[in-house]
Amino acid sequence: MKQDIDRLMHEAHIDALLIMGSGSHNPNMTYFTGKAHLTNAYLLKKVGETPVLFHQSMERDEAGGTGLETKDLTDYNILELLQQVKGDIQAAEAERFKKIFEEFAVKGKVSVYGKVEFGGLFSVLRKLEKDLPELEFIGEAAIDSVMMKARLTKDPQEVERIREMGKITTAVVADVAGFLTAHRAKDGVLVNQQGETLLIGDVKRRINLWLAMRGADNPEGTIFAIGRDAGVPHSTGEAEAPVEIGKTIIFDIFPMEAGGGYFFDFTRTWCLGYASDEALQLHQDVLDVYNTVYQTLKLNTPCRTYQIMTCEAFEERGHPTVLNTPRTQEGYVHSLAHGLGLQIHEGPNFRHTEDNTAMLEAGTVFTFEPGLYYPDQGMGVRIEDTLWASSEGAIEPLVEYPKDLVLPIQDA
Amino acid sequence: MKQDIDRLMHEAHIDALLIMGSGSHNPNMTYFTGKAHLTNAYLLKKVGETPVLFHQSMERDEAGGTGLETKDLTDYNILELLQQVKGDIQAAEAERFKKIFEEFAVKGKVSVYGKVEFGGLFSVLRKLEKDLPELEFIGEAAIDSVMMKARLTKDPQEVERIREMGKITTAVVADVAGFLTAHRAKDGVLVNQQGETLLIGDVKRRINLWLAMRGADNPEGTIFAIGRDAGVPHSTGEAEAPVEIGKTIIFDIFPMEAGGGYFFDFTRTWCLGYASDEALQLHQDVLDVYNTVYQTLKLNTPCRTYQIMTCEAFEERGHPTVLNTPRTQEGYVHSLAHGLGLQIHEGPNFRHTEDNTAMLEAGTVFTFEPGLYYPDQGMGVRIEDTLWASSEGAIEPLVEYPKDLVLPIQDA
Repeated sequence: MKQDIDRLMHEAHIDALLIMGSGSHNPNMTYFTGKAHLTNAYLLKKVGETPVLFHQSMERDEAGGTGLETKDLTDYNILELLQQVKGDIQAAEAERFKKIFEEFAVKGKVSVYGKVEFGGLFSVLRKLEKDLPELEFIGEAAIDSVMMKARLTKDPQEVERIREMGKITTAVVADVAGFLTAHRAKDGVLVNQQGETLLIGDVKRRINLWLAMRGADNPEGTIFAIGRDAGVPHSTGEAEAPVEIGKTIIFDIFPMEAGGGYFFDFTRTWCLGYASDEALQLHQDVLDVYNTVYQTLKLNTPCRTYQIMTCEAFEERGHPTVLNTPRTQEGYVHSLAHGLGLQIHEGPNFRHTEDNTAMLEAGTVFTFEPGLYYPDQGMGVRIEDTLWASSEGAIEPLVEYPKDLVLPIQDA
Repeated sequence: MKQDIDRLMHEAHIDALLIMGSGSHNPNMTYFTGKAHLTNAYLLKKVGETPVLFHQSMERDEAGGTGLETKDLTDYNILELLQQVKGDIQAAEAERFKKIFEEFAVKGKVSVYGKVEFGGLFSVLRKLEKDLPELEFIGEAAIDSVMMKARLTKDPQEVERIREMGKITTAVVADVAGFLTAHRAKDGVLVNQQGETLLIGDVKRRINLWLAMRGADNPEGTIFAIGRDAGVPHSTGEAEAPVEIGKTIIFDIFPMEAGGGYFFDFTRTWCLGYASDEALQLHQDVLDVYNTVYQTLKLNTPCRTYQIMTCEAFEERGHPTVLNTPRTQEGYVHSLAHGLGLQIHEGPNFRHTEDNTAMLEAGTVFTFEPGLYYPDQGMGVRIEDTLWASSEGAIEPLVEYPKDLVLPIQDA
């Protein structure tokens, strides 16, 4: 949580954080600024001090609205600096940073953040380091960084915002189920009342529409993958393909608060009309492993134990997994879970390897998503909820939704 | 254009491009991959050779769909590398890069790109440079980089995609005009048939909905700023504020192709019901300057001349500008234009200073947006179209839309 940042900075021997880039689609910046419309801003936070937001002059109202201490970048007159360095943009930017660091007495280890176009700032910071020997820029590994550790545990307001996104998400999932089951089956695919074939692209357009109506963005798209595509975890589904009945459909939806903010992540697997015995068994295996591992979740335990437990449970049921068949593309091929917040994927990590020391702390919001994939048999199943570990020790889905495999469809 | 990349690499003495990050919201990657759903991918392009896309194993179908040569990152076994370096993620990533650079014989100057979280890769690349002395990473200034120069001129397919976004954009602008004028004026604000006050947030939700219905995303939000807010160019407007009549409304809309891709950028200024004489005059001044400068646009001329011309035309009409009042927050306070494509802001740059050597080349798609701002008088006006400079020499808006200031409103 935000209140942990100074402690985490002390522990990592970091003197200042420098976050660069825009206010949206830039999680570490958004964590401080909220959804402010800011372009090319900087946030400077020295250990033990409140952060300062450096903003473009035109964006002073947006900057002011964040409630942060602000500083207008016009004060550093980039055009004058550009003339001093004969139009070298990178040199001018380095000079501006020098002025800022001098004014705010920034020294020592500065950890740099920001989702930004990499190249230009790479040069600027290297130039700065040469000119300012009392300063060292640190690039922390994202997953172990001060900011990620702070963001890993969510305060009640953050949890409620994610839960609100969960309500929107499951409402849209219900919309999609209703939309699909309002169709009829004909020659193995869904058709509408006029007999026209429903395409995956049609379904995805509806999803975007319904999300927008309910006030959510969908920056990363949606997975709606049928048959063989369902057997490849990150296949998103072919827009021009018809919606087939009797095959597994992996429907994985991960929208974001409108304008940038918190995500939700949710998956159900459906068969329209009917399911084969193989698909039913696959779904049952995933559901059993979901329930088995879910019941063991407990605060302050190592995250990796749950991935190992999941692999073992799947292997007992005859499926290869990444535990003992590291490069398998069949069976259980990914991680059980990942933290979720201002990014779809954030800490903690659940990979099984010994180097993973992440613990399941109170305040963690994380996905829980066992799955089985058999691309050559044209099927895959994943069931995913977003869980919250409360400080009281309860670990529960933020929203509930049925896990049925088969959605009934009438014949045309 | 893409075909220029090898020539531009030769001119910049660059041996390879390394683009990192996801397939969406990452313009330089998207330029090669299209809208493929790729996370943590790399694209390597050596001068004179075709690019290679390195992808996560789970995303092999998405990677294959790009038509690029692909390579599965599983081949480099990151978990084994992690064990070798005792769980140090950055060291493991550096080792993986070493394997890739060895296999593909990458040497010399490697220009690095990608909209990525900065810190982690900053460390990885510095570590790599230490270990591989035959290699030097270059961070080009974004605006002068090989990729930006290639992207600066658009081929006909790109132009048609941007024009298509323009049609969607102006259709939604017409929807908004229709929606507003279907309201009535009461006590200085718009109300619906039930007498309920219309809020700016309501308008913005409709905009998102209509954009989604027409197949566009709106990742950066919309500016719908009234009165004093209209006088501050990047104020986005307060969601909880009512829609007031008789005041200037700057409506600046900049949506993107659904799922990531090309942007459009468009602004109109409206007064609902009526306009004050001051607002009418301000609007006329902007329109006159728009027309005056627009008529002079010509291929292969310096971009900065148009910004200077715009400033001089506004100054003749009595308005301060950034040309002779560099830090002014009144009058004409920004640049006339910017290139537009996979980013809202890309090359060429139109700033007036002598160091700006950008030329208006055939194939350029750029905004054209004179404006005047008087926050203390509670008003601002901007008129913006997206223009295209064709290879035949015509420079015209990609789509047309009326520039009227006043939208008629009936009293309640």
